[in-house]
Amino acid sequence: MLKASGIITMITDFGDRDYFVGAVKGVILSINPEAKIVDITHNIAPGNIQEAAFTLLNCYSRFPEGTVHYCVVDPGVGSERSPLLVFNQKYYFIAPDNGVVYPAVKGTNYWAIDIYDMGERYLSRRVSSSFDGRDIFAQAAALLSRECNLDSLGELSREINVFELPLPKFRDLNLVGEVIHIDRFGNVISNITRREIRRLAKPCILIKGFRIDKEYEYYGQAPVGVPFYIQGSAGYIEISMRGHRADRFLKAKVGDEISLSGEADG
Amino acid sequence: MLKASGIITMITDFGDRDYFVGAVKGVILSINPEAKIVDITHNIAPGNIQEAAFTLLNCYSRFPEGTVHYCVVDPGVGSERSPLLVFNQKYYFIAPDNGVVYPAVKGTNYWAIDIYDMGERYLSRRVSSSFDGRDIFAQAAALLSRECNLDSLGELSREINVFELPLPKFRDLNLVGEVIHIDRFGNVISNITRREIRRLAKPCILIKGFRIDKEYEYYGQAPVGVPFYIQGSAGYIEISMRGHRADRFLKAKVGDEISLSGEADG
Amino acid sequence: MLKASGIITMITDFGDRDYFVGAVKGVILSINPEAKIVDITHNIAPGNIQEAAFTLLNCYSRFPEGTVHYCVVDPGVGSERSPLLVFNQKYYFIAPDNGVVYPAVKGTNYWAIDIYDMGERYLSRRVSSSFDGRDIFAQAAALLSRECNLDSLGELSREINVFELPLPKFRDLNLVGEVIHIDRFGNVISNITRREIRRLAKPCILIKGFRIDKEYEYYGQAPVGVPFYIQGSAGYIEISMRGHRADRFLKAKVGDEISLSGEADG
Repeated sequence: MLKASGIITMITDFGDRDYFVGAVKGVILSINPEAKIVDITHNIAPGNIQEAAFTLLNCYSRFPEGTVHYCVVDPGVGSERSPLLVFNQKYYFIAPDNGVVYPAVKGTNYWAIDIYDMGERYLSRRVSSSFDGRDIFAQAAALLSRECNLDSLGELSREINVFELPLPKFRDLNLVGEVIHIDRFGNVISNITRREIRRLAKPCILIKGFRIDKEYEYYGQAPVGVPFYIQGSAGYIEISMRGHRADRFLKAKVGDEISLSGEADG
Repeated sequence: MLKASGIITMITDFGDRDYFVGAVKGVILSINPEAKIVDITHNIAPGNIQEAAFTLLNCYSRFPEGTVHYCVVDPGVGSERSPLLVFNQKYYFIAPDNGVVYPAVKGTNYWAIDIYDMGERYLSRRVSSSFDGRDIFAQAAALLSRECNLDSLGELSREINVFELPLPKFRDLNLVGEVIHIDRFGNVISNITRREIRRLAKPCILIKGFRIDKEYEYYGQAPVGVPFYIQGSAGYIEISMRGHRADRFLKAKVGDEISLSGEADG
Repeated sequence: MLKASGIITMITDFGDRDYFVGAVKGVILSINPEAKIVDITHNIAPGNIQEAAFTLLNCYSRFPEGTVHYCVVDPGVGSERSPLLVFNQKYYFIAPDNGVVYPAVKGTNYWAIDIYDMGERYLSRRVSSSFDGRDIFAQAAALLSRECNLDSLGELSREINVFELPLPKFRDLNLVGEVIHIDRFGNVISNITRREIRRLAKPCILIKGFRIDKEYEYYGQAPVGVPFYIQGSAGYIEISMRGHRADRFLKAKVGDEISLSGEADG
């Protein structure tokens, strides 16, 4: 049985100006005053499941085992999509069944339960159909953070909706990927991994008409004003610039094509 | 006697880039290292009492009893307006006497004390006349979160400045309200409540020249690109759109007129 | 020996939309689940050491003794610059050796240790050269927040890189300073202190072609729409306006010249 750490992380698109985050934290602390709520971000672009999935994927495993990850980006709020508890041997995830947790649990031995099937204790009186983050997900997260008797919770299932971060594909001899994130510094993060680039001799990246074949290990090595690539902190190839935002220089945005060519190594 | 929960929530207009929030949290933790500080928002528009009052009203009651709500939006900082502790049977509020807590405590059995009258322990050496959030309010919040002996605190009063969120009025047969909030998703929140709309048959909302008579229970039910109304999570009628920001489509902003017409039901 | 308070504050330029803050908090809580992480700001302008140093300087001393201040604004990430623990009799600072903590520790009896010299326990497996905030600084902060046996940590040094906030200079009879910060309210903060202005009779401030000789103690005293100066909460002279953003009115930005003239008092 996975012991709760008492930590609840939050990834949401609720923003940082509204009462939404406050209402959720209040519900959690009323149920478990000892819960340790950790803000990851509330600034996921509204309804952007890919951005939330990417964020969760790149930090969830840093937390202690037994952490509850509350990941509520829920464009289908109120509809038939189920509110879920997903768990594996290390973590709990509270999220709508729209695939947002899939990249994080994929490849692990995970199970899911519909929160509506978790028994009366888990069901608050729902006062609205537009804020399940407060009325359903917060309560489930708080109860889980306090205890963890999953035995009697309801029927376990492996069936959750799948959302895959886009994967690069081969076209002729090139690996064709896409931009999956732009970070705060303007770094352009691709979905091409280090492993893929290491297979090639003389790798070269093509994006928005630019050919980029200079690699540096860290930003300070690079000359100012010339785009280069780096093996980024999330394991992906990133295009960066020293002293400039690479995204603006390249006019790149999420979804743009980024491809890798080179000679097969060895 | 209301037992302190040890939780201090923060609603401020200090922003999320300055040292202001850090200084306040430091003062609080120096007095009560066990305090649990909960960020609600620091991004209230500068000096906007209505926005702060609306935010507080819509989440304060979700917190455990004995929570201290630090709500400092204080355009009159340094002037004769009093720094207040307001409390009722469930919560403490630390705020300037500009009405910001009034909508939350209205209708409850509340009492107020001027922090200047709360005795020497509550008075720090004020180093500036422009940051009472740090120099006065933080100390009071921290002391209250640690203990709660209000017996000897000073003279209780019912006299606090009143700030009312705008209420809709009847004009001919229409209920004329206004936009009181735009949320992160572009939803346009009116001050017309569900109760008022339920009284009418064939209700119709007028805003910025648009007639809106479609109601949905949740966003996913609606067709894309057509404004509709919904009974929002704060209890008010909201204008929303699926796949668009309703505020931009309607060119609506806080303070705009929004009115309700229909036929009296029954 | 400085006893750890268990509090770790964070000042970073990681932004509030990425996974960066989440990853750091996860690493910290995995090492010290009891750590109390306090967000000061993650919105320092990317790579802006002056802004981070100013923020740290103006709030670090409000925290309980034994607090660990994690201050990671690190344009030289991955390069030869050392990751440091700096400490004095009251606080620990975890930061790159780029001077960012210097204004806070200047004038105190401080010591520094290169984190790379702190022994194997402090060295995580570095997975990237571009996110030392997660891979090096977080671990050091977490270990320090849990214990504080500095005896065996490694060689102490006084040699850290110096970064000075700009100081005003005399030119003829005027004191010539500069704008060192614009706050959320549009207040224009100079590097001229109260002490300097108190030395003068009839002080007058010159900025961007405006002569400002009205001083008020707090904002509410001033007439609307006229710039004035105030002795700000950080100890510096600030230019403010009631009902307007002074920075926009004056078209002032960080680095602009602001000078003080007057008659020597007494």
